[in-house]
Amino acid sequence: MIGYKFMGKAHSHAYRDVPFFFDVPAVPVLQAIAGRDEAGVQAAASRMGWLSHETDWRRLIERKDIDLIDIVTPNYMHAEMAIAALEAGKHVLCEKPLAMSADQAKRMLQAADRSGKVHMVCHNYRYASAIQYAKKLISEGRLGRIYHIRATYLQDWIMDPQFPLVWRLQKEVCGSGTHGDLAAHIIDLARYLVGEVKEVVGTMETFIKERPMADASGGLSATGKTGTVGQVDVDDASVFIARFENGAIGTFEATRFAAGNRNGQRLEINGELGSIRWDLENMNNLGVYLSSDEQGMQGFRTINCTEESHPYAGAYWPAAHITGYEHTFINMISELMKGIAGGYSPAPDFSDGYRNQLVLDAVERSSESKTWVPIQYD
Amino acid sequence: MIGYKFMGKAHSHAYRDVPFFFDVPAVPVLQAIAGRDEAGVQAAASRMGWLSHETDWRRLIERKDIDLIDIVTPNYMHAEMAIAALEAGKHVLCEKPLAMSADQAKRMLQAADRSGKVHMVCHNYRYASAIQYAKKLISEGRLGRIYHIRATYLQDWIMDPQFPLVWRLQKEVCGSGTHGDLAAHIIDLARYLVGEVKEVVGTMETFIKERPMADASGGLSATGKTGTVGQVDVDDASVFIARFENGAIGTFEATRFAAGNRNGQRLEINGELGSIRWDLENMNNLGVYLSSDEQGMQGFRTINCTEESHPYAGAYWPAAHITGYEHTFINMISELMKGIAGGYSPAPDFSDGYRNQLVLDAVERSSESKTWVPIQYD
Amino acid sequence: MIGYKFMGKAHSHAYRDVPFFFDVPAVPVLQAIAGRDEAGVQAAASRMGWLSHETDWRRLIERKDIDLIDIVTPNYMHAEMAIAALEAGKHVLCEKPLAMSADQAKRMLQAADRSGKVHMVCHNYRYASAIQYAKKLISEGRLGRIYHIRATYLQDWIMDPQFPLVWRLQKEVCGSGTHGDLAAHIIDLARYLVGEVKEVVGTMETFIKERPMADASGGLSATGKTGTVGQVDVDDASVFIARFENGAIGTFEATRFAAGNRNGQRLEINGELGSIRWDLENMNNLGVYLSSDEQGMQGFRTINCTEESHPYAGAYWPAAHITGYEHTFINMISELMKGIAGGYSPAPDFSDGYRNQLVLDAVERSSESKTWVPIQYD
Amino acid sequence: MIGYKFMGKAHSHAYRDVPFFFDVPAVPVLQAIAGRDEAGVQAAASRMGWLSHETDWRRLIERKDIDLIDIVTPNYMHAEMAIAALEAGKHVLCEKPLAMSADQAKRMLQAADRSGKVHMVCHNYRYASAIQYAKKLISEGRLGRIYHIRATYLQDWIMDPQFPLVWRLQKEVCGSGTHGDLAAHIIDLARYLVGEVKEVVGTMETFIKERPMADASGGLSATGKTGTVGQVDVDDASVFIARFENGAIGTFEATRFAAGNRNGQRLEINGELGSIRWDLENMNNLGVYLSSDEQGMQGFRTINCTEESHPYAGAYWPAAHITGYEHTFINMISELMKGIAGGYSPAPDFSDGYRNQLVLDAVERSSESKTWVPIQYD
Repeated sequence: MIGYKFMGKAHSHAYRDVPFFFDVPAVPVLQAIAGRDEAGVQAAASRMGWLSHETDWRRLIERKDIDLIDIVTPNYMHAEMAIAALEAGKHVLCEKPLAMSADQAKRMLQAADRSGKVHMVCHNYRYASAIQYAKKLISEGRLGRIYHIRATYLQDWIMDPQFPLVWRLQKEVCGSGTHGDLAAHIIDLARYLVGEVKEVVGTMETFIKERPMADASGGLSATGKTGTVGQVDVDDASVFIARFENGAIGTFEATRFAAGNRNGQRLEINGELGSIRWDLENMNNLGVYLSSDEQGMQGFRTINCTEESHPYAGAYWPAAHITGYEHTFINMISELMKGIAGGYSPAPDFSDGYRNQLVLDAVERSSESKTWVPIQYD
Repeated sequence: MIGYKFMGKAHSHAYRDVPFFFDVPAVPVLQAIAGRDEAGVQAAASRMGWLSHETDWRRLIERKDIDLIDIVTPNYMHAEMAIAALEAGKHVLCEKPLAMSADQAKRMLQAADRSGKVHMVCHNYRYASAIQYAKKLISEGRLGRIYHIRATYLQDWIMDPQFPLVWRLQKEVCGSGTHGDLAAHIIDLARYLVGEVKEVVGTMETFIKERPMADASGGLSATGKTGTVGQVDVDDASVFIARFENGAIGTFEATRFAAGNRNGQRLEINGELGSIRWDLENMNNLGVYLSSDEQGMQGFRTINCTEESHPYAGAYWPAAHITGYEHTFINMISELMKGIAGGYSPAPDFSDGYRNQLVLDAVERSSESKTWVPIQYD
Repeated sequence: MIGYKFMGKAHSHAYRDVPFFFDVPAVPVLQAIAGRDEAGVQAAASRMGWLSHETDWRRLIERKDIDLIDIVTPNYMHAEMAIAALEAGKHVLCEKPLAMSADQAKRMLQAADRSGKVHMVCHNYRYASAIQYAKKLISEGRLGRIYHIRATYLQDWIMDPQFPLVWRLQKEVCGSGTHGDLAAHIIDLARYLVGEVKEVVGTMETFIKERPMADASGGLSATGKTGTVGQVDVDDASVFIARFENGAIGTFEATRFAAGNRNGQRLEINGELGSIRWDLENMNNLGVYLSSDEQGMQGFRTINCTEESHPYAGAYWPAAHITGYEHTFINMISELMKGIAGGYSPAPDFSDGYRNQLVLDAVERSSESKTWVPIQYD
Repeated sequence: MIGYKFMGKAHSHAYRDVPFFFDVPAVPVLQAIAGRDEAGVQAAASRMGWLSHETDWRRLIERKDIDLIDIVTPNYMHAEMAIAALEAGKHVLCEKPLAMSADQAKRMLQAADRSGKVHMVCHNYRYASAIQYAKKLISEGRLGRIYHIRATYLQDWIMDPQFPLVWRLQKEVCGSGTHGDLAAHIIDLARYLVGEVKEVVGTMETFIKERPMADASGGLSATGKTGTVGQVDVDDASVFIARFENGAIGTFEATRFAAGNRNGQRLEINGELGSIRWDLENMNNLGVYLSSDEQGMQGFRTINCTEESHPYAGAYWPAAHITGYEHTFINMISELMKGIAGGYSPAPDFSDGYRNQLVLDAVERSSESKTWVPIQYD
């Protein structure tokens, strides 16, 4: 694994827990973790149970005892690392967004295709049991033709103008701000549950345009300057309308300026036969409405998707003994292990990452051109 | 009052109830109601307590015993009736949307200004206690600078393709479909709570393009044809993004194809110091989040706006003995009575109706041009 | 009508509104209202639309132009007034609790039976559409055998120890405190939805034992003393367990010391085939769970009981245009009018009031004896 | 660890995860697991990461390489195992309820006191972050004097009369049914948050009195008979009222016959200055009401207790990336490790287990005697 901060912790935990809950055909061994700061990576390896560490990620890729490279670094490094790993014959799991641009993502996908190795992009929320169950209902036609999706990902952790210019606010490190970080998630869920996006129109905004520079410990600063003020060159908010190939209309909003919304990833999908609702902050529940319910008895059901009959839920605890954020990773890694053992790339793979990036890029272009922008799949 | 269906009932009830709950300086007397169908209007007058009836609305306007004309007819008649009434020296309350177009609305506003009479447009949801309280909080600066509004008005009553082509689905009668009916409401709340809209981009859609013609009893058919199939020439859904003059960004969605949402008018507003949430289906409650709450104790409060300290609530019942839809009309009419007695037009007046129509028109043009459209106030 | 405060307002409003919404066979005429304070009753009559007033309730009963006597006075007067009215050949609607004791209630019931007139006790919450719909489901066997009911009525308006000793806190005026005021409501709903109570065990408590005397305007003080401290001789809270004749077990809690619960009348009923939930503060909604829903799709539905298919809802507005507290009275009065026209006493009648009082009395005795107390119906 | 089913899994997982999330002074090593069925315990050891296994629990207690014995067996074995382990100089963690009776629990407590070893009883829900935060608020006096607690633990997994007679339905194995399984949890939370119980009155019920015998794989059958019908000799439901030493009144209900409630452990506590609400099915949230909030702004706040400022939450993920059931165990085990390293028994210890059992026993006696039963602490 390359990187060891927030996502490093989430992934490491999932590798440790997956054989406890699932009968996976391949059991992950936490061979080595890489990071630039020797002390930091050593401490992380020790705490999270990695058997060794490296300070140069290229060393990791060269090692023969490693089959899978997991990339949890800031976005600007994804492409170089993933392509190198694939070319070295490693399977790759890469954090989202897959790349800094659709072009970059396409090169990664091409490298993946050439390599014949397993590739996966970490859109973990697909693997919430409630989302998997929603997918099942939609696939079975239980909602019929889809008319609408409305999805938000609302956070509020940078609303204080004195919050520093951490790496997630620096374009050269992360490519975009809220857009690649949060909008990428709801785009993935929309593609998964509704289908491919045909065209978009949107707008992006940076509400706080200057912030104090982060100090050395406050995040990876690309410029290295501290104690001064820096320009915020990424978006604080991204909103767009999408038309899907199947005729559905979507509204999407990602922002870090929605006070009181700590982690407000929410979606509702309306079809001709019913609707579903989901909220990450109460992620075990799925709201389901069926138009076929008898008159008088129609209403959204609150389904706690923790029963044997719900995807992945049987691996954990009895009904309504709820699971949480980290279980999305455990479920996803269980599929990755199956893919590695079976020689296939489980969804969402680099193709999904690329298509997601096409939508992200189209919204950025639309925000500049102030027109609708079609998505050009190829 | 001209017209006597759904809105006629809501208005009539409010006129009857307003002196019971409020010490209004002018007590409405239900002098006369007009409608084209003699039997229908007579029955309505009797049931709703009107002292007389007319079958020609022009007779109503000529009567000397009438001070206020209340227009609750389909949209295409609003302008002619309102202008005639104003020119005859009557005060006017007109249902929303004010007109079929911004041009028409402007002529109505000009007639109102010329007349010197009281004019009001029936955006009743402003007068929900929870919305009034939200307005108070925002006006006092409790949310600080506003960053976002997201608003929906979701219904599902025409999802069945066999639902007939009633007047609300006929462009020559109502001007637009969901757009003027539902989007007009959330535009009004946004203008009231956030401010004026600067520019919009949006799209509109008709999912079911043909429907059976309504029979005579199924609604006012402009064409009069029955038993055959007609084209739906209005929108089933309207979604748009708005930028406000104060820098806020809004997302708006109105649809009649959101299964399970019977009356889903919902909004959330995020400011630098806090947020508010509201849902018409549980309209007594206001969600309020304050960033100034101490660490650990931060979260949305659910405030049941039925206490003495909440606007209009003291007129009704003790705390949490909830009120409903009809009370928005009673509150509004109490203000109209005060305006008539005091010689001023209470908000929302025809200027609000006109500005609302400018936004509606801009979205329609944007849907055609596929570009952002600025709002030109004059 | 005798009395004109909170309940007087609720009843008066219902009489005015009932012909607007319902085709009742008898239309109420608000002939006269009685109260001891001439100025007060005159103002009330004027504001609420009563045609005349009396300062002696016995005059009201003597009047030939009055068919129905509505008693909305403090509890200690109910029996004398109701019996006098019935003996004078008037129909009677009486506020709850019907009496100060089961013995008193029994005498009222006997008088009612002797009179042959229509009698009804105002347990208005039965007439919430959601409760009526719950009753329908239970009657149809949709929940099967009932195992449990848990019901609370939680308020918080007297938690301040400086809140004065108003009439509702004086035993000689109201008989009991929370018990007769709030527990009576949930007992009625339990009897209506589950069945007759067989035995109870419970306890009652007065948390604040002394309070400032109410001044003249602060409520009807039986003692007339002001400016001093008085003993609270009624309960602040009443909790009990009940066993029903059909084997169900109930838990009941009524209190005025539940901070943050303004009007928390809530119940859940569990049967072998499903469950229902209801909360007065969001009274349009009924939660329904059906065990027969398919695996994976099981969960409580939130049904907004405002559709044509829900009892009484069709009289008002389109689906999810919610109604409120006052509509329970309007629905109930519509039944009273039908009863008067048809010559029968609609439920809940004095028999229900008496049986309710038997349960109230049994809980009081249990609180003293610290044992289970059987209910002796006769 | 002795036992390896549901609780064995939950405990094993917590031992594995605790050093990943917490800097514990003692890191658990999963030395050995015991169970009677060799194949079963071997498979469990392998899957859950135990280094060895035993088929005789006494062998486990004799081993020198084991410091802590964790007892997750059916209730009837707790006392013998715990006393033997303590006498062998082992620390002990024991599942709840601590024993089959208060007498037995007292002997366990005495053995624990004699041993000087660390003892803890697994009332894991205390260690939900939201409960810990509620405890903090109450301890700081934020709710003032406590008036009420109402607590339920509602499940529905045995409602089908054909559900077999598993060990949890056999008195000789588990002592009681719902009572010791579910009521024990809400008694613990009540003791933790409100204080000691003074007296109780309650009733218990077995709705389904006969069930098919469980087959060999269906659970530990004490009798070993299969394919026939057996008597259910434990309670299906247990409800009681409690008076606390500090004057608070509690209502408690535990049942396995509440259709639609998969895991409905819920409580509300009302104090003179505010209230709290909690629901296990949405366990990250705490509802908090403060009477000191300004007029108009009063309402329950929904606090997602996943922030740095909330107990234990900082060990996991960013705000509102929710945790679940298993984290209550991880938090609890982190305290157990601190206790072992520091030489003290963290709460809840065997004294808590004993006091809990006193309440359980008193309710059982009350159900038989039909009177209030005082709790005799000694």
